[in-house]
Amino acid sequence: MGGDHGPSVVVPAVAQALAELPEHVCFLLHGDEAQLAGQVAQHPGAAGRVTIRHAERVIGMDEKPAQALRRGKGTSMWNAVEAVREGEAAAAVSAGNTGALMAMSRLILRMIADLDRPALVAQIPTPNGVTTFLDIGANVDCDAERLVEFAIMGEAYHRAAHGKPRPSVGLLNVGSEEMKGHEEVREANRVLRAGAFDLDYRGFVEGDDITKGSVDVVVTDGFTGNVALKSMEGVARFITGELRTALTSGTMATAGALLARGALRKFRDRMNPPPAAPLLGLHGLVLKVHGGASGRDFAQALRVAGDLAQSDFAAEIERNMTRLPAALADTSPEPADGAA
Amino acid sequence: MGGDHGPSVVVPAVAQALAELPEHVCFLLHGDEAQLAGQVAQHPGAAGRVTIRHAERVIGMDEKPAQALRRGKGTSMWNAVEAVREGEAAAAVSAGNTGALMAMSRLILRMIADLDRPALVAQIPTPNGVTTFLDIGANVDCDAERLVEFAIMGEAYHRAAHGKPRPSVGLLNVGSEEMKGHEEVREANRVLRAGAFDLDYRGFVEGDDITKGSVDVVVTDGFTGNVALKSMEGVARFITGELRTALTSGTMATAGALLARGALRKFRDRMNPPPAAPLLGLHGLVLKVHGGASGRDFAQALRVAGDLAQSDFAAEIERNMTRLPAALADTSPEPADGAA
Repeated sequence: MGGDHGPSVVVPAVAQALAELPEHVCFLLHGDEAQLAGQVAQHPGAAGRVTIRHAERVIGMDEKPAQALRRGKGTSMWNAVEAVREGEAAAAVSAGNTGALMAMSRLILRMIADLDRPALVAQIPTPNGVTTFLDIGANVDCDAERLVEFAIMGEAYHRAAHGKPRPSVGLLNVGSEEMKGHEEVREANRVLRAGAFDLDYRGFVEGDDITKGSVDVVVTDGFTGNVALKSMEGVARFITGELRTALTSGTMATAGALLARGALRKFRDRMNPPPAAPLLGLHGLVLKVHGGASGRDFAQALRVAGDLAQSDFAAEIERNMTRLPAALADTSPEPADGAA
Repeated sequence: MGGDHGPSVVVPAVAQALAELPEHVCFLLHGDEAQLAGQVAQHPGAAGRVTIRHAERVIGMDEKPAQALRRGKGTSMWNAVEAVREGEAAAAVSAGNTGALMAMSRLILRMIADLDRPALVAQIPTPNGVTTFLDIGANVDCDAERLVEFAIMGEAYHRAAHGKPRPSVGLLNVGSEEMKGHEEVREANRVLRAGAFDLDYRGFVEGDDITKGSVDVVVTDGFTGNVALKSMEGVARFITGELRTALTSGTMATAGALLARGALRKFRDRMNPPPAAPLLGLHGLVLKVHGGASGRDFAQALRVAGDLAQSDFAAEIERNMTRLPAALADTSPEPADGAA
């Protein structure tokens, strides 16, 4: 029911995803039965693979998370997340209110580690693929343990979402030398370097490595990640604007100029919120689709959800997470010269 | 003597700056007398306004700061900074080794507050001017007091460098609400909001406000600032590369496409290290010019140094700094609802 368009975008997207996903994949649609049934009836292929679960109420896009929690029970969003907890669904996908979805998911599914909130992932375009970048805003204060958890979760997500067998992982810092940065990143670096995890850890990376694609997964705290993401979006928007000015300021509305604008638009589209951002760190799969998602975006999100649900994602995270307490204990907090 | 080109760029730049600066402005040139004299002789206009101060040695561009300090005395860089302490020069300008210049400046001139290291400033292009952005990497760990000091120094710098009577100041955060962010930014926000300083403080801003130009001065810690700056540079480089590919991949090398490339190049030039970055927080003016600076860049840096030296920059910083201890004491660390 969520997002800017509701069932008129979601139901056709479900029909499209059903055509692409294996036969055994089915959907539970939570929301207003009358509205949903009307939409589903227009897609004969959906018959038998879609079950409508009526919900009396819907969480508003501008409700505060605390309010959404208080009156959440019985809403379509609540029921979708609860279906994951009950084992009825392998994943929940929503284009609804992000804060409410995070709060409900945390309450209903609980966190696998002692994270404050689920970590949010961005997919940043690079010349030869995408960088998985986390946390982009959920966990503002992060100690070394938190950063190591992000590395574990981001690596498993990148493999499941992009099919790369062994994604490389870097830790965002202000330089590549071991003694650079604040104590939290230096400790996380020591823990990851010590090699207790099944991870291709490459050490520190810097801000420009995010778009270079130097590593597949770039890990940082939610404060730095949010600022970096928005700063990058700002530059993309600024360049688009400058270019538009340059291209409309004279006699130059040529085919080449239009092509240049196309290239920029493509970049900005790729910089936009990815179709599906998982909430990482929950006992169960929840994916957030951005509110303005098109049918194609939503279908793509459903495909990613399917890939994640069929992957070893959760087991891989679990396996590395169980090694974390020993790894933290083994790594002395401040070795003599800061070197691993 | 510093930078990639040494006296062959610096001396012509001095001659150019002399032609633009008031008659009473003179230069001390520190370095190898023979080399410098040969260059100066080629600029008749420089006679009488340039004094060569011979130095036996020069700091190498790749010397470590600690090494540069040990063997620094008597080098051209050391002498230039010392001339500021002795009151012989109003400002020191160098294109030499940044780490060495910072370490020497801190040792010789001392910090005005209990900053670890001088703060570094970037000038980020916006649709209608530039944003002064600091700290971009010198002070990795920043408490609230440090952030308030950056606000004071950045505001005075923006006024002196850009002639704007009352620059607006924002504090970088992950949202604009008072309760957002970690404790350091929330406390700095309370202190700045309380109004003890002569500052146009506008509250929290987000990453994309840097290139929007929402405020004139954006303040953050050196970790976040360095990551944000490099992330932004990475996006500019990525877009340039994508565009180049798009423009050379077909039949589209048109005038419009070339124009688009020109607009991008202009942006990248503006994103590059500004000609003159002041080391903020010292008892005395020191400006760093980037190593690859052209003669025009260097002349521009000398003009900025002149503007700063003739402004009330230092007195304005001093005036606000003396209000800081009381402002910190007045602002309770944790008010009931986090609101000012």
